[in-house]
Amino acid sequence: MRIAIDAMGGDRAPQAVVEGALLAAKEWQDTELILVGDSATLEPLLRDKPAHVSLHHAAEVIDAEDEPVKAVRRKKDASMVVAGRLVREKAADAMISAGNTGALMATGLLVVGRIRGIDRPALAPMIPTLDGSGVLALDLGANMDASPENLLQYAIMGSLYRNKVHGIGKPRVGLLNVGTEEKKGNELTKAAFPLLAEAPIHFVGNVEARDVLQAECDVLVCDGFVGNILLKSLEGTAEAIFGVLKQEFTRSLTTKLAAAVLAPGLRSFKKKLDYTEHGGAPLLGIDGLVLKSHGSSDANAIKNAVRQARTALAGRLVEAISSEISSGK
Amino acid sequence: MRIAIDAMGGDRAPQAVVEGALLAAKEWQDTELILVGDSATLEPLLRDKPAHVSLHHAAEVIDAEDEPVKAVRRKKDASMVVAGRLVREKAADAMISAGNTGALMATGLLVVGRIRGIDRPALAPMIPTLDGSGVLALDLGANMDASPENLLQYAIMGSLYRNKVHGIGKPRVGLLNVGTEEKKGNELTKAAFPLLAEAPIHFVGNVEARDVLQAECDVLVCDGFVGNILLKSLEGTAEAIFGVLKQEFTRSLTTKLAAAVLAPGLRSFKKKLDYTEHGGAPLLGIDGLVLKSHGSSDANAIKNAVRQARTALAGRLVEAISSEISSGK
Repeated sequence: MRIAIDAMGGDRAPQAVVEGALLAAKEWQDTELILVGDSATLEPLLRDKPAHVSLHHAAEVIDAEDEPVKAVRRKKDASMVVAGRLVREKAADAMISAGNTGALMATGLLVVGRIRGIDRPALAPMIPTLDGSGVLALDLGANMDASPENLLQYAIMGSLYRNKVHGIGKPRVGLLNVGTEEKKGNELTKAAFPLLAEAPIHFVGNVEARDVLQAECDVLVCDGFVGNILLKSLEGTAEAIFGVLKQEFTRSLTTKLAAAVLAPGLRSFKKKLDYTEHGGAPLLGIDGLVLKSHGSSDANAIKNAVRQARTALAGRLVEAISSEISSGK
Repeated sequence: MRIAIDAMGGDRAPQAVVEGALLAAKEWQDTELILVGDSATLEPLLRDKPAHVSLHHAAEVIDAEDEPVKAVRRKKDASMVVAGRLVREKAADAMISAGNTGALMATGLLVVGRIRGIDRPALAPMIPTLDGSGVLALDLGANMDASPENLLQYAIMGSLYRNKVHGIGKPRVGLLNVGTEEKKGNELTKAAFPLLAEAPIHFVGNVEARDVLQAECDVLVCDGFVGNILLKSLEGTAEAIFGVLKQEFTRSLTTKLAAAVLAPGLRSFKKKLDYTEHGGAPLLGIDGLVLKSHGSSDANAIKNAVRQARTALAGRLVEAISSEISSGK
């Protein structure tokens, strides 16, 4: 297995990325890791690198502020774009980046390319659930608008990912909707429902936004706009409540003492709700494995992304999606 | 002012509704309250009623489980439908119901009728914010799909409501979206943005789901599907977190003691986030004032709905919407 890593992407790049790659190299001797980025910057960090870690020079960097599509088109020698090209040219089997999310989606689409038959690739992060298991939600931002057929493809890809990467035998696929009854929803979800019901997946029907945290499904299907509204309101509400709790807890000496007693339980709960704990988000539907690691990724997060990529490659995820989509045509 | 009240609608009807009407009658002697419902049931509850409270008989009741449109069409003598007819026939200026929300929307649309020029009426409840002020969100469920022109009308109606009923001079109107930049969003929000920017309102641009709780606007515009996802994920997250807090707090005697210290502060915060504290939701765009009071309304909530109806009638809200919409044509 050969995994290209965008060494210049993410808030803590390149140090944390290189460190994470070296941790991964230590754990998995059978995996070739290709760090892509500016060699003058990276060489000093890679003095003691093992033989299965290599450096691939790329002179440019795409920043968090860059306009995604424009950056990918113009910065042809950016570390992210070069990593994508390695996947396209089959010089790597997968790529990982903690850089600009929009640019990574553009790299997947424009540089690596789609699987034949896939209309729209989808970004599929895990949304945290109360029991800590998480739900894979897609699409979360690759495409704002979607057709019923897009949602069907999201459902199939998400189901295969949960099966191949997380080992879930029959992933429960839910359709994000305003009610559980079949006839509920907008034009999009009403047209998608029968398609999902007939698809080769374990469709559990509509799932309401209020029940997502209760882990009622393993895969949650929605268009990118609605998915963003769901995730952001979930995050915003949790942050707001924890913010107020903190205020209440530090109001006086008595409340501080009381809070100290409760802190350990709350901290572990807060961690459960932290979506950065759930690893990278795959960009599904791309003809090669593309993983988005969180922008704030530390070395451990990068190592975990490598683990995730290894599992997906071992499960032949991309091939499975390709064969399932072409068989449905 | 004459306000028709559906005495049979809501989880605690008819007792709480009648009680609330009597409380309101005591406070506002100048308002005629017409309680609509089964006279055999209501008469015993109205023995000591003052002269400005009257009883209007209606033999049927629409239940929470009734299919809305069908129920409104078939149960022509249902208390909710009869109240709607009183508004239509100008025998009442407003109606209040704590009954089946879908049926009330159908009553507004089919019995009372739309304001000329309004394509789609919108249900506009308050979403709680951290500072307790709340944001009027519309549409929240009357129409799943919306056109850019519908969103424009929602914006105008919501702005007028906040002005006339809540006394806000220049209500800040926000468009629920996935980013704050003008070009962000799906086809719908991208097309709606320039319409809102040119409308006779104080448009503050796009508002992200994570910022809704921070009270960044007074009116939040969205289609009914997205609005439902926002509100339900907000409610679901808050409920889930408070549920876990309760668990943590009752884990041992020590945590119970600690929790007792923190309880008052948390309780007042939780109350702020309780949307039932914010009164009834107007169904805007109907040619007459229609207010949905929460299904679990107690006497006080009904009294508050009467207060809300009085303010809206005094501000000539319906006339203002009608004139603003027709001037824009």
